[in-house]
Amino acid sequence: MLTVIGIGPGSESMMTQDAIAAIREAEIIVGYKTYTHLVKSMTQDKQVIKTGMCKEIERCQAAIDLALAGHNVALISSGDAGIYGMAGLVLELVTQQQLALEVRLVAGITASIAAASLLGAPLMHDFCHISLSDLMTPWEVIEKRIIAAAQADFVICFYNPRSRGREGHLARAFELMQPWKKAATPVGVVKAAGRKKQEKWLTTIGEMDFEPVDMTSLVIVGNQATYCRNGLMITPRGYSL
Amino acid sequence: MLTVIGIGPGSESMMTQDAIAAIREAEIIVGYKTYTHLVKSMTQDKQVIKTGMCKEIERCQAAIDLALAGHNVALISSGDAGIYGMAGLVLELVTQQQLALEVRLVAGITASIAAASLLGAPLMHDFCHISLSDLMTPWEVIEKRIIAAAQADFVICFYNPRSRGREGHLARAFELMQPWKKAATPVGVVKAAGRKKQEKWLTTIGEMDFEPVDMTSLVIVGNQATYCRNGLMITPRGYSL
Repeated sequence: MLTVIGIGPGSESMMTQDAIAAIREAEIIVGYKTYTHLVKSMTQDKQVIKTGMCKEIERCQAAIDLALAGHNVALISSGDAGIYGMAGLVLELVTQQQLALEVRLVAGITASIAAASLLGAPLMHDFCHISLSDLMTPWEVIEKRIIAAAQADFVICFYNPRSRGREGHLARAFELMQPWKKAATPVGVVKAAGRKKQEKWLTTIGEMDFEPVDMTSLVIVGNQATYCRNGLMITPRGYSL
Repeated sequence: MLTVIGIGPGSESMMTQDAIAAIREAEIIVGYKTYTHLVKSMTQDKQVIKTGMCKEIERCQAAIDLALAGHNVALISSGDAGIYGMAGLVLELVTQQQLALEVRLVAGITASIAAASLLGAPLMHDFCHISLSDLMTPWEVIEKRIIAAAQADFVICFYNPRSRGREGHLARAFELMQPWKKAATPVGVVKAAGRKKQEKWLTTIGEMDFEPVDMTSLVIVGNQATYCRNGLMITPRGYSL
């Protein structure tokens, strides 16, 4: 059996009961090395197969092959495995190869939810997720989504906001939003949520400093009604108070 | 102290460690009666304050007042409290009333993530959340968001899709998407995720039956690349397989 598990952003405390039970029950843990490290305390009696970055297909195929060989395998993914994680790739491989393999998916806390709970309540109204990685998505599609989301006044969560090789993507996204999102629109950044090096700060579109944002960061841009007070980022739901 | 807790969709197994610990530590549990019922097994030694529907402000104020009086209070909210839940309202009240009250927010599994994990992997690419309730949002704003999201080919998760008094909203949303989303676009519906009466089914925009959809349902509409195979709804991330 293969279980694909979203382990949440980093700390065991943000994992679900299901995720913890599935890791405990598994014989073999497969994952990107940073993530296998995050669950180290729970997996010391198990075989752990760590793979490097950009080895997603190999990693998923290894987990599938071990499960087909009769092992109880847990493939771990950060956040929720179904959101820019490993769940989709596993199901694509299993269906493409027409394998008779039971795959169980265990939901996890994705980065936007973890970041939001640390910043206040920025996601109280309609929002969207946009990944700024153009490794597998044409940049034109990403631009189109940024513009549509800004125009329709969604709260926007930027995943993969900035990394080596695409330092300029986040700044470009901010440029694209400008006709619709005012300079005073609140922005919240959370870096390494739930991990030792966790950092967070609030700023605005106009005052945004892109430099400290990296791949472990999640950037949330408010809607027209979002405000910051007492260090909290709040998007009103619309109650008359 | 006041802790606002996202209890996930329904079952204890989808709650995080943090959420369970916070409920166990609290003296008083405050929540909408359906949700207090869901955590009944964990709260039998506690004072539980249940309130009815549409009593959100009263519920949050009661929790705040009890916390200000020195009690350790847990306000529970289904899914994630920061997504169409109670977190925002609590923070709005606390900041508006300039209260010196520590509010802790505990992240939870929101309906879209729970539903996605039951359907396959429909949220593997950029997606958005749109609530179809116009109780506090002008319907024009909702329409604008539906059109923008369809036009930019987001996967769309509809919250509050259909209830008494707004039976037609979901059908209208589907009408609005039609110029951009083909009739063959997959649609997944999950009803009462994680609860005893859980149901789920796959269909398409063209074959959608709105009748069985209710307020406990979450509707996910795919993007151009989403497909269904072996009972699974999959949105490819973009890997070349």
